[in-house]
Amino acid sequence: MSTPDPLPTWNDGTTKRAILTFVESVTTKGASFVPAAERIATFDNDGTLWCEKPMYVQADFILHKWGAMAKQDPKLAQHQPYKAVAEGDAKWLGSITSHVPELVKGVSEAFGGITVDAFDQEVGDFFASAKHPTLGVPYTDVAYRPMLELIEFLEANEFRVFICSAGGRDFMRVVCEEVYGLPRERVIGTGAPVELKDGKLMRTAGVEHPIDDGPGKPVHIWQRTGRRPLLAGGNADGDIQMLSEAKFSLLVHHDDAKREFAYDVGAEQALAAAKAGGWTVASIADDFATVF
Amino acid sequence: MSTPDPLPTWNDGTTKRAILTFVESVTTKGASFVPAAERIATFDNDGTLWCEKPMYVQADFILHKWGAMAKQDPKLAQHQPYKAVAEGDAKWLGSITSHVPELVKGVSEAFGGITVDAFDQEVGDFFASAKHPTLGVPYTDVAYRPMLELIEFLEANEFRVFICSAGGRDFMRVVCEEVYGLPRERVIGTGAPVELKDGKLMRTAGVEHPIDDGPGKPVHIWQRTGRRPLLAGGNADGDIQMLSEAKFSLLVHHDDAKREFAYDVGAEQALAAAKAGGWTVASIADDFATVF
Repeated sequence: MSTPDPLPTWNDGTTKRAILTFVESVTTKGASFVPAAERIATFDNDGTLWCEKPMYVQADFILHKWGAMAKQDPKLAQHQPYKAVAEGDAKWLGSITSHVPELVKGVSEAFGGITVDAFDQEVGDFFASAKHPTLGVPYTDVAYRPMLELIEFLEANEFRVFICSAGGRDFMRVVCEEVYGLPRERVIGTGAPVELKDGKLMRTAGVEHPIDDGPGKPVHIWQRTGRRPLLAGGNADGDIQMLSEAKFSLLVHHDDAKREFAYDVGAEQALAAAKAGGWTVASIADDFATVF
Repeated sequence: MSTPDPLPTWNDGTTKRAILTFVESVTTKGASFVPAAERIATFDNDGTLWCEKPMYVQADFILHKWGAMAKQDPKLAQHQPYKAVAEGDAKWLGSITSHVPELVKGVSEAFGGITVDAFDQEVGDFFASAKHPTLGVPYTDVAYRPMLELIEFLEANEFRVFICSAGGRDFMRVVCEEVYGLPRERVIGTGAPVELKDGKLMRTAGVEHPIDDGPGKPVHIWQRTGRRPLLAGGNADGDIQMLSEAKFSLLVHHDDAKREFAYDVGAEQALAAAKAGGWTVASIADDFATVF
């Protein structure tokens, strides 16, 4: 090719070619052309755009918070979840990361009754100091380079890319510009209820329903964009409904224990749906020339 | 000036100059510069971007719908609101347009249990046939030309313009591209609950809370953009909280009975707040060189 490769960190192969062919088909005049206004791309975040192992980034954030709260008020350490954090109860902590709704609820409760700005500040402080436990880098550096390239490529082709995360919307928004080059309004995610109280925007306890997972993803995407995704990317069972709505569905497969993590747990049904539906599977081992 | 006037349908005066000065101040390097990512502009729709008299466009839509339903099932005409429509009860109909929540609820009930696509189609059919009762043009032609220019001017200066309407989000989205040149995801508004049922996105009865009016506007804007508006425009009391959140607040004043409609009812507190808060008031009579 004479034009520069828009996806240099993707290895040549059927996956890369499928992406390039699809984007060309919807941006070139002809039967499959899609007007720019309808070019909505949605990506799950954890495990799709950045590393979700050994635990969700947001889980580490809430553990930090619970630990700090237990330190400040030792009585708290007699109860869960503060107890587990204070005692380093790996079994209890290991089980929580697989329960997104409870996790989101826990975050929301820990941060209910504070202003949206105070929450922003706490999240910013976390990202400024915390590091990924095995990669040893700030969490802002654990996004997959090939996926960053894909976002940039789609935006250059007049797609608007949205991050459609089961995790907390207001959590991701603090770093979405720095990590993904996307403005805050492009983050769709599970929300905390917010109210205007004495002229201040306050977070209240609880979570907004539906949460942005499973059947909630197409609902959130419709509510936020008024459209179905033209292209969607995910990596887990909670992404199936979103991927089913898209014209082009990309499933990231975690099969690279050496450079990232290898696991199918929580993605078994998604992998089966990919096979049945003819979705494009991005193997981290085979398709990513570079991971981070 | 040597550069072309970006707002030719605004008369020269303090209002136009205030807008130009503000936009220049936030886009020029210096103490008041605001990064592009933070340039969010939000506008109320009815009475701010397009004509809301003698009744909300969406009110006319629902009256059309109720009328069609009553025709199809004469038993319905024994009950309100179908009775009022069937009988042309001006008093009942006149009172409904001042009750946004009931109106939105009425729309939602009339269209609950149908797919989002079927609703889209019904709205599209309405806009294709209905005309403004006094202006005699399609409703897609009742936007204020100076406000269209302002939207274009802001977008050219890397603002993202959002329509923050108390009215139905999914209603406005059908024509936002044609009328305002804005993609669907730029419409914030009162939503109908949506659920994924057997793989279909269905509208359900009721409205999402809070509705996008009064204190709900800053909440919706935060939920949708993660920011407060840098510039906001409104025209009525339900816009006060949104206008209070913005750095630059523009209040459209309906004082032109000749070219549009003259009324302060429902805007009394907003006009007082504008005076107290030093907001910029756009007089349709004085500041708009052209209205439509």
